[in-house]
Amino acid sequence: MATSPSAKRQKSSKDVSYELIYWPGLPGRGEHVRLALEEAGAEYTDTAHIEDGIKTVLAQIDDKNLGDEHNPPPLAPPILKHGDLVISQTPNILLYLGPRLGLAPKVSEDDDAIYQVNGLVLTALDGLSNEAHDTHHPVATGLYYEDQKEESKRRARDYIENRLPKFFGYFERVLKSKASGEGPWLHGGSLTYADLVLFQCLDGLKFAFPNALKRLEGSGEYKGLFELYDAVKERPKIKEYLASERRQKYGEGIYRHYPELDEEASS
Amino acid sequence: MATSPSAKRQKSSKDVSYELIYWPGLPGRGEHVRLALEEAGAEYTDTAHIEDGIKTVLAQIDDKNLGDEHNPPPLAPPILKHGDLVISQTPNILLYLGPRLGLAPKVSEDDDAIYQVNGLVLTALDGLSNEAHDTHHPVATGLYYEDQKEESKRRARDYIENRLPKFFGYFERVLKSKASGEGPWLHGGSLTYADLVLFQCLDGLKFAFPNALKRLEGSGEYKGLFELYDAVKERPKIKEYLASERRQKYGEGIYRHYPELDEEASS
Repeated sequence: MATSPSAKRQKSSKDVSYELIYWPGLPGRGEHVRLALEEAGAEYTDTAHIEDGIKTVLAQIDDKNLGDEHNPPPLAPPILKHGDLVISQTPNILLYLGPRLGLAPKVSEDDDAIYQVNGLVLTALDGLSNEAHDTHHPVATGLYYEDQKEESKRRARDYIENRLPKFFGYFERVLKSKASGEGPWLHGGSLTYADLVLFQCLDGLKFAFPNALKRLEGSGEYKGLFELYDAVKERPKIKEYLASERRQKYGEGIYRHYPELDEEASS
Repeated sequence: MATSPSAKRQKSSKDVSYELIYWPGLPGRGEHVRLALEEAGAEYTDTAHIEDGIKTVLAQIDDKNLGDEHNPPPLAPPILKHGDLVISQTPNILLYLGPRLGLAPKVSEDDDAIYQVNGLVLTALDGLSNEAHDTHHPVATGLYYEDQKEESKRRARDYIENRLPKFFGYFERVLKSKASGEGPWLHGGSLTYADLVLFQCLDGLKFAFPNALKRLEGSGEYKGLFELYDAVKERPKIKEYLASERRQKYGEGIYRHYPELDEEASS
């Protein structure tokens, strides 16, 4: 029986490894994609570790890029290329990868769990990644931190005093909900990519605000949250990855350590 | 043949109307959900128009709500209830509704268009809704605008000068891409919920920054973008909805009109 050329193209195009297109030099938003690929032991390439990889990033987000017949151009990395498919936006890439990597239930008429996982991821990225970034860039992403330092101090104080407890309290509550199931995970009693996202957010926050995070962890109010953090960190493949050179150091990215934005160390 | 009780519950539970749970008194993020339901002519209830509807919102986001066996508690509205399912986060609700309302392709192994639609929605909400909100709350969402007015002026100027052209230019480019197909729409040559989201963002921006938007529209650089806006506005069901009492007025929400944050009117 003849296969239509387009169906054939589609099939063969997915029988290839994943290509992560992201800035070299810092974990950034790309890290959420890496952790999912690493946990699953998937084959992938990463422009952060390819010579001149940055040129691939720049070509994708160039003003002249008009995408192609199926793919609109992306605005910003992370970008995932998988065969003919090119998609962007961190939660969107994870939504695509999750079921394929066994890190989320498949989308189907009978199972809506993917929407719970996606919802938790969107909330974690809103509060613990985007808002963390805004603590050092409250006025303009195009300006240096030094040009918005006073505003940053006000914003960081509010973030530590009000926003972190709000989001930590929320995820602690999710972990106590029946829907989280057995074990340390957020949803359905098994590891999903939402757990990996929350891990990475907590890891970045520990780097950016070590004093605040130490106090919050020590309070005992967010026991489930920090247990999840430890449980992800101990996953054999994640552990191996974090110790490898593929894991990049924090720097001038989302999570930055400016001591003046953290709280004082408690005695 | 016997149907298992759980499969039966699942089926019958979806044979009910949608319930939108959102603050009364302003369009807000809930408006993206309303526009999708209205365009599709779907049956739905809306706590904004139910007596004491706010109590339903508050019960959902109460610190004591632990969700149930399938649903973790939501952090914030908009929340969609559909039978047994309770989900939150605007792009997540739209992802669920889109294919069901005929406003996006179904998720399948052979068609990845839903990820393009979802990616466009996430980008529109990031740049044209969340960042628009931050122009009047750059320091802390918990403080009044009056307590962060100076910071707001700096942030709004940057938003108008740098961010709006960046995002408008991006969507104009998407509209020129082959993947957008024929007609005024963002993806695949037919209306999707991404178009409705972009319409609502532009509508809110026109309210918040009338002078800036008039200038940007008049520049002719974003012709496709404003044609999309007009095309959505003229959809018969959207037109009827916008003229109805179900459409709420802008107020103290995401899109606020503070003349001091807009640019001067051009002569």
